[in-house]
Amino acid sequence: MFANTFGTYLRLTTFGESHGPAMGAVIDGMPAGVDFDLATHLQPHLDRRRPGQSNITTARSEADRAELLSGVFDGKTLGTPICVVVHNTDQRSRDYDPNYFRPGHADRTWQEKFGHRDHRGGGRASGRETLCRVIGGAFAARLLPSQTRVVAFTHQIGQHIAQSIPEDLTSEFVDQHPTRCPDLNVADRISRELVECKAQGDSRGGVIELRIDRCPIGLGEPVFAKLKARLADAMMGIGAVVGVSLGDAPAAASARGVDFHTGIPGDGPAAGISPAASGIQGGISNGQRITLRVVFKPASTIGSMAREGRHDPCIVPRAVPVVEAMANLVLADLLLASRLNQHLIP
Amino acid sequence: MFANTFGTYLRLTTFGESHGPAMGAVIDGMPAGVDFDLATHLQPHLDRRRPGQSNITTARSEADRAELLSGVFDGKTLGTPICVVVHNTDQRSRDYDPNYFRPGHADRTWQEKFGHRDHRGGGRASGRETLCRVIGGAFAARLLPSQTRVVAFTHQIGQHIAQSIPEDLTSEFVDQHPTRCPDLNVADRISRELVECKAQGDSRGGVIELRIDRCPIGLGEPVFAKLKARLADAMMGIGAVVGVSLGDAPAAASARGVDFHTGIPGDGPAAGISPAASGIQGGISNGQRITLRVVFKPASTIGSMAREGRHDPCIVPRAVPVVEAMANLVLADLLLASRLNQHLIP
Amino acid sequence: MFANTFGTYLRLTTFGESHGPAMGAVIDGMPAGVDFDLATHLQPHLDRRRPGQSNITTARSEADRAELLSGVFDGKTLGTPICVVVHNTDQRSRDYDPNYFRPGHADRTWQEKFGHRDHRGGGRASGRETLCRVIGGAFAARLLPSQTRVVAFTHQIGQHIAQSIPEDLTSEFVDQHPTRCPDLNVADRISRELVECKAQGDSRGGVIELRIDRCPIGLGEPVFAKLKARLADAMMGIGAVVGVSLGDAPAAASARGVDFHTGIPGDGPAAGISPAASGIQGGISNGQRITLRVVFKPASTIGSMAREGRHDPCIVPRAVPVVEAMANLVLADLLLASRLNQHLIP
Amino acid sequence: MFANTFGTYLRLTTFGESHGPAMGAVIDGMPAGVDFDLATHLQPHLDRRRPGQSNITTARSEADRAELLSGVFDGKTLGTPICVVVHNTDQRSRDYDPNYFRPGHADRTWQEKFGHRDHRGGGRASGRETLCRVIGGAFAARLLPSQTRVVAFTHQIGQHIAQSIPEDLTSEFVDQHPTRCPDLNVADRISRELVECKAQGDSRGGVIELRIDRCPIGLGEPVFAKLKARLADAMMGIGAVVGVSLGDAPAAASARGVDFHTGIPGDGPAAGISPAASGIQGGISNGQRITLRVVFKPASTIGSMAREGRHDPCIVPRAVPVVEAMANLVLADLLLASRLNQHLIP
Repeated sequence: MFANTFGTYLRLTTFGESHGPAMGAVIDGMPAGVDFDLATHLQPHLDRRRPGQSNITTARSEADRAELLSGVFDGKTLGTPICVVVHNTDQRSRDYDPNYFRPGHADRTWQEKFGHRDHRGGGRASGRETLCRVIGGAFAARLLPSQTRVVAFTHQIGQHIAQSIPEDLTSEFVDQHPTRCPDLNVADRISRELVECKAQGDSRGGVIELRIDRCPIGLGEPVFAKLKARLADAMMGIGAVVGVSLGDAPAAASARGVDFHTGIPGDGPAAGISPAASGIQGGISNGQRITLRVVFKPASTIGSMAREGRHDPCIVPRAVPVVEAMANLVLADLLLASRLNQHLIP
Repeated sequence: MFANTFGTYLRLTTFGESHGPAMGAVIDGMPAGVDFDLATHLQPHLDRRRPGQSNITTARSEADRAELLSGVFDGKTLGTPICVVVHNTDQRSRDYDPNYFRPGHADRTWQEKFGHRDHRGGGRASGRETLCRVIGGAFAARLLPSQTRVVAFTHQIGQHIAQSIPEDLTSEFVDQHPTRCPDLNVADRISRELVECKAQGDSRGGVIELRIDRCPIGLGEPVFAKLKARLADAMMGIGAVVGVSLGDAPAAASARGVDFHTGIPGDGPAAGISPAASGIQGGISNGQRITLRVVFKPASTIGSMAREGRHDPCIVPRAVPVVEAMANLVLADLLLASRLNQHLIP
Repeated sequence: MFANTFGTYLRLTTFGESHGPAMGAVIDGMPAGVDFDLATHLQPHLDRRRPGQSNITTARSEADRAELLSGVFDGKTLGTPICVVVHNTDQRSRDYDPNYFRPGHADRTWQEKFGHRDHRGGGRASGRETLCRVIGGAFAARLLPSQTRVVAFTHQIGQHIAQSIPEDLTSEFVDQHPTRCPDLNVADRISRELVECKAQGDSRGGVIELRIDRCPIGLGEPVFAKLKARLADAMMGIGAVVGVSLGDAPAAASARGVDFHTGIPGDGPAAGISPAASGIQGGISNGQRITLRVVFKPASTIGSMAREGRHDPCIVPRAVPVVEAMANLVLADLLLASRLNQHLIP
Repeated sequence: MFANTFGTYLRLTTFGESHGPAMGAVIDGMPAGVDFDLATHLQPHLDRRRPGQSNITTARSEADRAELLSGVFDGKTLGTPICVVVHNTDQRSRDYDPNYFRPGHADRTWQEKFGHRDHRGGGRASGRETLCRVIGGAFAARLLPSQTRVVAFTHQIGQHIAQSIPEDLTSEFVDQHPTRCPDLNVADRISRELVECKAQGDSRGGVIELRIDRCPIGLGEPVFAKLKARLADAMMGIGAVVGVSLGDAPAAASARGVDFHTGIPGDGPAAGISPAASGIQGGISNGQRITLRVVFKPASTIGSMAREGRHDPCIVPRAVPVVEAMANLVLADLLLASRLNQHLIP
């Protein structure tokens, strides 16, 4: 638990203030010999997150071009730390007093904690920081088995909840609508509401659902680094996130045990697997689908500042690749950890 | 993120299998000179968690007497690692096949991950492991300011939800009912349901609410060790927990921004504080009440095994001190971290 | 770098004050499925270190019987934290003033740093703490390939320097003399000098040489966790150690490069190996013998206190198994680390 | 112990290959509010280390201009991670076969460990990597009390040993001669020898002495992060270092205890301080001068490759600021650690 480093075996360290020269990430612990091409494996993820994608996102204009400084040679990782930098280009400073605090933002607590802050913008508390997580996630994803699929999507924005989600969902399907809600009827309603929100200086929260399919069996390090705990830590570390639940937690809380636990005891091939476990038992992945819901509060910027157009009325659509990135970081970190658990006869 | 160590500045390392000789904890990073008396500051917390407290808990009989091996001298901590051990005394082994897997339990995933496990009982996956967290939490609590109050209670069990909770709730008030639900009408209904559950080999989940009042301002290390992320990690690492929410997260998800963010901007004494922030802004405590909801799925042991009486039909009541312990560990760890943030003129 | 934890992948956490109830160790990160028998794999190492072995060691009488509390089941490690405890039995307290400081000891600095210390004895600064390292080393040794040999011996005590050392040295050979000097002529001279030292309240320092033969290739994590850096850290963390050198460092300092670097460049089977590298190039083991010299200052207890017989006139002989233990811990930690470096196609 | 991160509380993570686009460093854990000016506090240190300073150093021409990407605003640190980058400009690639291994270098071990390496040059094993340590050290130095003085100098090169060193030595004094040997007679002899060495394709090793005066009392975290252990780890992690000794270790090994330990026991102001302790007792600084000797083997590049002029015949002079940087990193890290040891009444 260090302020700016995520992960233990695969370690992402991020740096950069939203109104400083650059944002960046150092990824350490990446094994050598992994194929990596910036244009193929990283830039598309940054493009999914970057501002100015549509009329429902901020007007801040950043190309977010990744520049690789180290760690990859001849198209393969070297086993050395990878540094990727993205220069800030459109960092119009607000003309703020250091002691002007916006409610719901980090302004006041950051000032009280550090005594000195970059008051030109959100600094490290800006959502812009999450682009560094996307960089990390892009490398992490390269360590996962090719059959593992990590897909996040907009499940809810405001009071609009997706009803019909394809079973075999892909990121491409999710991306066909700017809201990233795969229920296209609901998506259109969300879109209209967010356009109106923006005009009125209002904002919305929502829920992102994350699905991990064909997760390697055995990820999670009980008792303190259970897979569910690592995922919760990863998601609750994202700016506006206020809740995380594995599967449908509220339903689990009120269910009867005999209805909830329907698996088969014994020693057969599926014995001991609980259909309701949402892919994690004893904190360790069991190979079944993992479903996580990540709850966002409404964006903090409202009123006149929101109307000026440099903020998102709802960060949920742009947070979808961030949720995926954090999940990839958790999975890759635990995958590396799992190399250490069993005895290899030397 | 190490399997058996929680915290970075105050580090709790736990050990022990449920059917092995002993459970224990090493607390490292505890500053020197803190008054500590085992009988006053630790044993009562263990007593709140131990089995056999009432007719709604397991019949396993363990005195859970703490024995101090190091780190405290003349009633004060030494600044050296503190080891506390609790011997297991009633560890009747189940006569199980190592390849018999109970659904919802860690049996199968643990076996697949490690290849070798202590199949006499739950091993480290047993709820018994949480007593070590209570040991750690008791030391952590000694580092918090005396005015800070950390209180958890049963908010919901099955479909029974507490309605009326005293504003100035204490652990003593919570403990007056074996369910630890401070709405005594609801508590009685819960009690009756759990007695029936036990008879029928059924089980229940629920929700624990945690309140932190008068938290020191400035706790939380953005961007990855935000207070909310640390709390989520801590709670989701507890056995049956499937969800964590800061404040009423579902309500936040569907709220309008202009209704949710009602604080005052500017530079006055309360400026920038958001009443809806649930005590945390930008991942850092703002001194207001922090409310966290921790969601538990129904206990995994059902059917004939549940009827034999060595399991809790609902672990929520006994998990209340565990939730408090984990919160204390998070707060103390971040309090130590905060000693490092600002420059002290040398 | 935590005060009481050594290692990153295999983590040894030690606890216990010399005059408290017990010394102990928690080993975390040990893979599951490793055969371990206390009597065979641990106790003999503790016996090599324990006080009262001969007339040249302290008269403190401790059986140093190891008690296993967790982490091993059915003769195999579980992949869970292993706790081993050794109770103190002969801890006659000195009747000391907390503000009485012995020169060369940790008394004064410890008091200044912590403000409160266990002044009945050396506390954690006592050499007794090293028994916990021997516990850790015994587990670490079980992870190394069986052909790897880690042997330390007394190279020098006072002005007596071993001249003739068998090429294929074993711990059994080293142990045949209480000085642990394998040059038996020199050993006898050392013995006589130490008996005299003890009578006069004098003390001696010396040098332990460590040989690692058939070390796995590839251990060491440049740039900061090079094998030589980890060994130096490990050895300089032992009480009276004041110097560490890889091979014959003073000779290297004054050698000509063309005489020193005599290996063959190119791409053949031995190409690039430097005979003078002492088994480590670029901070990574190359499979050749590693030789490390560890320099000890004279024991700090002199004068009347030394004559009473509860201290060693020279700690070098009893430090031999401690040096081996620390080397084993370093090697095992780096062996685990090396599992993470290369890409395994998932 | 992570490959590319040094320190626990003040963490330096370095990146960059010698023939890649850039070298760089991220410093995390730096408190907020520390005055920092790149031109004043960093660039002069890089200039002391950079190639091409004189006729006894490599002809590689690098300006080594530091560029600040984050963490400092309005001339003060923000408490956020600081990233500094130095672009490589003169990275003429060698036209090497990946399987051509130079003896004494890291070529072969690196290839065997990672399977894939940047064979255009030394990659991370190049001495060029140490410029990142100098960046880190420059920030670390800003955390130390102004009265603390950390000065390193050339004590020996080849067979030439400095005899007369000013008691109150400064870096300015050291820098007046390109050899950084403050005994100017010896310095001239070294200079002549190194010019000749270069012409002949020979190389030399040597010894750097480090003096720390007026070190804060109480630095060092026994039992594993003793000040001496941290210094040894820091120094042995530098490329060609093969030995470290606290004070004059060889003399200590052969001294009589009664001659070595000459301090006064008791409770007076200087009681318990050992003049021979070289400033560290029980692993903790006592405020007296700390003297450390760091031994370097001869530079590995010899023969025709050495004659081409792109390598140093002896790296000792340019390693002087690197040794200081590592010392500063150790001291600052332990200074931060010491903020956590004693109880502050909340």
